[in-house]
Amino acid sequence: MSMKNKGFASDNNAGVHPRIMQAMNDANVGHCIAYGDDHYTSAAVEQFKKLFGDCDVFFVFNGTGANVLSLQAMTQPFNSVICAETAHIHVDECGAPERFTGCKVLSNFSPDGKLYIHDIARHLHGIGFEHHAQPRVVSITQSTEMGTVYSVEELRELAEFAHANGLLLHVDGARIANAAAYLNVSFKEMITDAGVDVLSFGGTKNGLMYGEAVVVLNPALSTNFKYIRKQGMQLASKMRYISAQFIEYLKDELWLENARHSNRMAQLLCRKIRALGIETTQKVETNAVFAIIPPQLIKALQREFFFYVWNVERGEIRWVCSWDTTEDDIERFVEIIMNYEL
Amino acid sequence: MSMKNKGFASDNNAGVHPRIMQAMNDANVGHCIAYGDDHYTSAAVEQFKKLFGDCDVFFVFNGTGANVLSLQAMTQPFNSVICAETAHIHVDECGAPERFTGCKVLSNFSPDGKLYIHDIARHLHGIGFEHHAQPRVVSITQSTEMGTVYSVEELRELAEFAHANGLLLHVDGARIANAAAYLNVSFKEMITDAGVDVLSFGGTKNGLMYGEAVVVLNPALSTNFKYIRKQGMQLASKMRYISAQFIEYLKDELWLENARHSNRMAQLLCRKIRALGIETTQKVETNAVFAIIPPQLIKALQREFFFYVWNVERGEIRWVCSWDTTEDDIERFVEIIMNYEL
Amino acid sequence: MSMKNKGFASDNNAGVHPRIMQAMNDANVGHCIAYGDDHYTSAAVEQFKKLFGDCDVFFVFNGTGANVLSLQAMTQPFNSVICAETAHIHVDECGAPERFTGCKVLSNFSPDGKLYIHDIARHLHGIGFEHHAQPRVVSITQSTEMGTVYSVEELRELAEFAHANGLLLHVDGARIANAAAYLNVSFKEMITDAGVDVLSFGGTKNGLMYGEAVVVLNPALSTNFKYIRKQGMQLASKMRYISAQFIEYLKDELWLENARHSNRMAQLLCRKIRALGIETTQKVETNAVFAIIPPQLIKALQREFFFYVWNVERGEIRWVCSWDTTEDDIERFVEIIMNYEL
Amino acid sequence: MSMKNKGFASDNNAGVHPRIMQAMNDANVGHCIAYGDDHYTSAAVEQFKKLFGDCDVFFVFNGTGANVLSLQAMTQPFNSVICAETAHIHVDECGAPERFTGCKVLSNFSPDGKLYIHDIARHLHGIGFEHHAQPRVVSITQSTEMGTVYSVEELRELAEFAHANGLLLHVDGARIANAAAYLNVSFKEMITDAGVDVLSFGGTKNGLMYGEAVVVLNPALSTNFKYIRKQGMQLASKMRYISAQFIEYLKDELWLENARHSNRMAQLLCRKIRALGIETTQKVETNAVFAIIPPQLIKALQREFFFYVWNVERGEIRWVCSWDTTEDDIERFVEIIMNYEL
Repeated sequence: MSMKNKGFASDNNAGVHPRIMQAMNDANVGHCIAYGDDHYTSAAVEQFKKLFGDCDVFFVFNGTGANVLSLQAMTQPFNSVICAETAHIHVDECGAPERFTGCKVLSNFSPDGKLYIHDIARHLHGIGFEHHAQPRVVSITQSTEMGTVYSVEELRELAEFAHANGLLLHVDGARIANAAAYLNVSFKEMITDAGVDVLSFGGTKNGLMYGEAVVVLNPALSTNFKYIRKQGMQLASKMRYISAQFIEYLKDELWLENARHSNRMAQLLCRKIRALGIETTQKVETNAVFAIIPPQLIKALQREFFFYVWNVERGEIRWVCSWDTTEDDIERFVEIIMNYEL
Repeated sequence: MSMKNKGFASDNNAGVHPRIMQAMNDANVGHCIAYGDDHYTSAAVEQFKKLFGDCDVFFVFNGTGANVLSLQAMTQPFNSVICAETAHIHVDECGAPERFTGCKVLSNFSPDGKLYIHDIARHLHGIGFEHHAQPRVVSITQSTEMGTVYSVEELRELAEFAHANGLLLHVDGARIANAAAYLNVSFKEMITDAGVDVLSFGGTKNGLMYGEAVVVLNPALSTNFKYIRKQGMQLASKMRYISAQFIEYLKDELWLENARHSNRMAQLLCRKIRALGIETTQKVETNAVFAIIPPQLIKALQREFFFYVWNVERGEIRWVCSWDTTEDDIERFVEIIMNYEL
Repeated sequence: MSMKNKGFASDNNAGVHPRIMQAMNDANVGHCIAYGDDHYTSAAVEQFKKLFGDCDVFFVFNGTGANVLSLQAMTQPFNSVICAETAHIHVDECGAPERFTGCKVLSNFSPDGKLYIHDIARHLHGIGFEHHAQPRVVSITQSTEMGTVYSVEELRELAEFAHANGLLLHVDGARIANAAAYLNVSFKEMITDAGVDVLSFGGTKNGLMYGEAVVVLNPALSTNFKYIRKQGMQLASKMRYISAQFIEYLKDELWLENARHSNRMAQLLCRKIRALGIETTQKVETNAVFAIIPPQLIKALQREFFFYVWNVERGEIRWVCSWDTTEDDIERFVEIIMNYEL
Repeated sequence: MSMKNKGFASDNNAGVHPRIMQAMNDANVGHCIAYGDDHYTSAAVEQFKKLFGDCDVFFVFNGTGANVLSLQAMTQPFNSVICAETAHIHVDECGAPERFTGCKVLSNFSPDGKLYIHDIARHLHGIGFEHHAQPRVVSITQSTEMGTVYSVEELRELAEFAHANGLLLHVDGARIANAAAYLNVSFKEMITDAGVDVLSFGGTKNGLMYGEAVVVLNPALSTNFKYIRKQGMQLASKMRYISAQFIEYLKDELWLENARHSNRMAQLLCRKIRALGIETTQKVETNAVFAIIPPQLIKALQREFFFYVWNVERGEIRWVCSWDTTEDDIERFVEIIMNYEL
């Protein structure tokens, strides 16, 4: 579907940031050894090390790939993975985590998209009992699918609790930049120092074309990753074009600039609709706004802007701002709401 | 590794054709619905239908993904897949076909990279016998990993034999354009009319950045493909950038132009080295040249040009030409050989 | 661990009924073709057909095998299976269903071990949406892991609702005989006529040594079962010894006699402990009694009889009666309770 | 199919040795904790330790289960397993090894059923290269599917070569007793001291009813086996009946007595048919005879005795002797041949 206006459906609908696009054009010179043995890739990995400290980095095609391969590196097939019921790995990957790791995914009721220590604790029984899938990974999303953010303190506590119980901590960072922008901390503080074991580092939702990075902070988990990636169908032949994007993305804090912008646009949208009496259903901490609006207004808005109804029964919608959302986009959107008699 | 000269290691080492790159830049405007529900994708699919006739088309990230998902759509886990021992699915995908389909891969001795009817026939026993994995797919590569090409007649006979025996025919078309250029036939004649069931249609080796297409000619095999692709971690969010590449690639026969060029360069290289007394080990029908040269010459050449030794014991090397290989590249390459005392 | 007394831990701890043991001895004559092509197996299948009407029957080794292979025959890897959170397939098979089918298992809060239509209904969204695992099977246990029983009416409604929504109904019948004894209906009325698609028919918990039967009522699901069983490592070579057990078990209603007995023993135990003021936590409809007792009493009882604490926090225990539990066993057990000052 | 005479089709067609059957009857007393926590199982494990030295032992249902779980314990999904093309894991398990381990199975031409060091060596390339499945296990069958036997020296050399190249050695011992009888060595000499890592120890073909043992000699491979077995659907609830069989089987060398007998019967059969001018195609070292006979004779024999044609084109048949084959069985069988005009 082609769109008249930029929509608020998903940050995946936005295009590629011009600086990223330029970097891809610039990388299009001559021959490079395929499959990652090129200087773009080594330079991109170096950038990650500057931001995260010591780590291993593996580029893959997309977020599902990053999450599934991360989980595979952390588990045996008889393990289980504990997550929130809103987690992308639970609801939006068509069962890929179960299919490819063999593991059981244990979801937990989560009105705010976050997983708490008591959620994990209730699964810690039957340890050593062969009839039960053995818990091995806690997987959380930062920022969450509900737009909320774990504090650094919360992350540290989750990591400590996990490690104290023989578990590993995985972070689905499809929107990790938006979380870092909100918390105003470095990746190293938020991820490495907090004790995260493996991070799916996303870029596509924040201005990249394609390509995500698996950042392995726990070196024991890197050993076989190259085989896992290849067998997992996620090894790009012309990898330089993924690497070139990440080099530009991580340089001069382009990632932060984009994330701050989309967060700010969501704040703006939130303030304006609240002023009109619309009820939001989640804290607006990053680039998504969840709100309840009447069915008629949903229809009126969708005539001009594409977006998804999150919960049909409750009339709850989700609006997502992108790196390219403008104040003008929001003005025109809010104008429709204003013209509608609530 | 960065390279002084364009090498002859792999067509994967070449960059993106300028027209493709431009098409990607041009597509970088505004918002598009993610995951393929955009007008670039529908236009690209239409292009495929013009070239193949009625078919279903699913874009994926890479060749391993195209092959594995194709095989999954064609099989149950208790099936087997028959291929040449040189097949990419057998030797170059780290066991991904077995891992994701559950199927047994039955390889066959193949000095020229081709699979013959007698190779298939010898596996057709134990049919209906539950102790044996049940043969279900014949998978061939066109052009083969050895640079050779099945004639349209050979393809038709393979398809007929397969269908007569309850098997399906899959074609790994990572270099399908080079085969079409060599045979001077349309895709429809070579693939659809010959009776192929599913084709992995490659572009990355012929000037694209990333993205391959699974072309399903047998409509019964399309039913669940969208789930297979998503669960198979091969669904691109910003799919317009894959689709835009294919639109340009298939328009005005850019695919053919590139393939003809790389084939022609391989012919040139072949003629020149044969004139110097070097023995080639495969027919040069597409863009690869296999030859036997002395170890010292390998070293001398590799100091200037990157390429792979195919068979260390025999001193057999593989040189691959790309859409961007120039006559000058070949001149400089051959000059090193000429200066070396054979 | 050896046991002074017969315990109340599990009907799996009981031995083999003498008639079954005798039948195995009787079958131990001469040679029989292996892997099920023998007259014991065909006779056993006939017995099933008499009890269920038209069906296909496949013998396997154990309950996990029966459940997993049943689910595999009913699903594609991108499907999901809906069950109660108490289901054996969810909590007691170490993730085997996910690992071998690739499917997502969706569990539902279930204080009485039963699954209700509203539990299924809440998962029926995202149909046709490739990002979601597609619901395909409703799996229930009859009698449930909590000792409760679905009425024939409930089963019929579940089957109708499932079929109306494109789903199939699987019944884990590890204790199907106990349910039939409680409901006082035939297998045909309870299973076939109610619309069940596939049944895991258990016998080991009711007097057999090993061996379960997958009873396929929906003929479309039998097509590939023999391959699924063999590849699923569940094809017995000397199958006559499984078949001979089932012949005896189904003859003269031995299955019913054993099930009635263990149900009656549970009723007796229940009445006696309730008379002592002990609170039971589930309806006692089959052969299990769930009750809450003080920790000290648990210890006192476990010194003489082995059984499992079901829920440590609540002090809830599970006592299971078997085909060989005697009134005397119960007397001695209850005596300990009587001597303990509640 | 019922049989007039004991056949020569398979040692799987024989019944259960009376001593084994008696041991099962004797074990049928009272309650035992299910799933292996019983004194029969611990006693059976002790018997194995006496015969093999230090080891871990896991009972499973059948040979496919023993082989597949052994391989899973030894591999990651990106590994490959090297075996003879005649190996049961390659041709007779319906692809179970690939399906459940994810590994590639690399078969090798093998006229005598044995695997040689040069067969392994040719697969040792691409080590560390992520595009290739990484060789990890050498799997051999002792005695082989062709009735031949590796000498202790050969086993030791295979183990040394494997270990020197970072590989593990698995032995499919479906007929390990026949090999030990032929070599006249202890299991410890043949297996433990030779350096085998994991053995599938079979008994069903030599007088047991069901049940095989995975004997893990390399302790690092035991760590997760209990989860692998449970998730692999191979954990028996009433395990005492498997254990009781093994206790009797290993006591007073019943295993050896049975194996020596079936080996001797095969020798007898071989001598008699050779005397009649029939060509045998394999060395008769254990309990199988491979021979070439005319199609008419095959028909004549199969009217009285059931057996399999091994290779239709060559007219090659396989005759297998069992623990219960008698000299009289052979006399009557040979008589048919004598009465037939060769």
